[in-house]
Amino acid sequence: MRRARVAWQGAVHEVFDDAGRPCLLDGRHPDPEELVWLPPLAPTPVPRTIFALGLNYASHASELAFKPPDQPLVFLKGINSLIGHRAESRRPAGVEYMHYECELAVVIGRTARAVPRQAALEVVAGYTIANDYAIRDYLENYYRPNFRVKSRDTCTPIGPWLVDRDDIADPMSLALSTRVNGHLTQSGNTCDMIFDVPYLIEYLSAFMTLSPGDLILTGTPDGLADVRGGDEVVCAIDGLGELVNHIAEDPVGLSAEQAGQKVKE
Amino acid sequence: MRRARVAWQGAVHEVFDDAGRPCLLDGRHPDPEELVWLPPLAPTPVPRTIFALGLNYASHASELAFKPPDQPLVFLKGINSLIGHRAESRRPAGVEYMHYECELAVVIGRTARAVPRQAALEVVAGYTIANDYAIRDYLENYYRPNFRVKSRDTCTPIGPWLVDRDDIADPMSLALSTRVNGHLTQSGNTCDMIFDVPYLIEYLSAFMTLSPGDLILTGTPDGLADVRGGDEVVCAIDGLGELVNHIAEDPVGLSAEQAGQKVKE
Repeated sequence: MRRARVAWQGAVHEVFDDAGRPCLLDGRHPDPEELVWLPPLAPTPVPRTIFALGLNYASHASELAFKPPDQPLVFLKGINSLIGHRAESRRPAGVEYMHYECELAVVIGRTARAVPRQAALEVVAGYTIANDYAIRDYLENYYRPNFRVKSRDTCTPIGPWLVDRDDIADPMSLALSTRVNGHLTQSGNTCDMIFDVPYLIEYLSAFMTLSPGDLILTGTPDGLADVRGGDEVVCAIDGLGELVNHIAEDPVGLSAEQAGQKVKE
Repeated sequence: MRRARVAWQGAVHEVFDDAGRPCLLDGRHPDPEELVWLPPLAPTPVPRTIFALGLNYASHASELAFKPPDQPLVFLKGINSLIGHRAESRRPAGVEYMHYECELAVVIGRTARAVPRQAALEVVAGYTIANDYAIRDYLENYYRPNFRVKSRDTCTPIGPWLVDRDDIADPMSLALSTRVNGHLTQSGNTCDMIFDVPYLIEYLSAFMTLSPGDLILTGTPDGLADVRGGDEVVCAIDGLGELVNHIAEDPVGLSAEQAGQKVKE
């Protein structure tokens, strides 16, 4: 079963996928053009902690001229950054490089601690697609956390569907791709992750309690490119559908923010 | 007004400070020895995103042999790490250095974006004390986010009280201190922050929507030292009270976790 959350005619609704058409729980089929797609995580589970992986595909590490990590390179993202399917992500004025990252997103379904990898998928509620945008201008240098690179408002589109775990036979064998304005730019397979989903759940739950609604964004393969205002970015994963997103230029950006960053006198 | 959340006689209660004695909203005064103190953030606001500052006191930067940063060095912490007053924080087996960090914690009271520093305190609900424990063994190297250093379960005690904003005349002039087993080890003043509270709210809200329940941990002065199982750690801040915490040895730790971290074959 695929479920989603949409806004339609003044209310938020949970819908399911009825042979390609979103269907309300009362059986109505709203006009798809009238829907606003929300992140498919509420009302249950509510998004909580967002874990994200750096350099979890060897091809992407190579593209950035890094060695593949020998331990998971995990960071956290602000939940303010989430938006849903068919929404806009804002590119700050004055930046040179904002790129998409198509990623398999794992949604945790129950409270879990010290989960062995053999049992890891039992704590998974399902899967969705995330586009983990990065604004590389803010990386500054590697001694700093990549906080502003990754946690801006609108920079984590997810959805459209939360697909039940049992509907995905093998999460470690899913083709994923990105198309920008219709051109294929990113193409990979989750089988190429350095640290796979069971490993990541074992790793994180060894020292952190996982909770329903926690999200793990599992990294991206190579094929990154700058996107600009007006671009349409479509991330697709086998069995999960297509996440459509548009880039909008944000008139506020790098220079205004940097100007505000003076050390206290 | 100072408010807190406690567990007592099988239920969670909101209490207020009645001249030093916790008082239930129905006027009863439970025996303080029977209380379990919870993080003072729910039911409203519910903890959401935890921002934390690295090296935000020059004395601490100097202690770690770093230059003071010229921009806020912000990272995120997992909300799984929160525990309340009088609880235990667990020190993983096999680590060499776990240290406390007494910090002024700012609790956001309303949704806010692009807040100028002049209006920043208007979005603050109140203040509490945080002890932002760090387990330095997990820092590994500075190319990595300090994720495992800071986001372990039990490693962010906060409380005991959420003190209303208007009860604190000037958050930028509060003495803060830590005592370990009764000995003063850390002593500073919030006036020595490199980036002050209004600045941090302006900075963060320039690119992220702040929400009720967001927490900003504002950094710590110098005076850090290793703590061990059995230690009592008391963080105090003018007007906010004292946050008491005990260190417990966690039999699971570094070696077990590292053993699990093999790259996929």
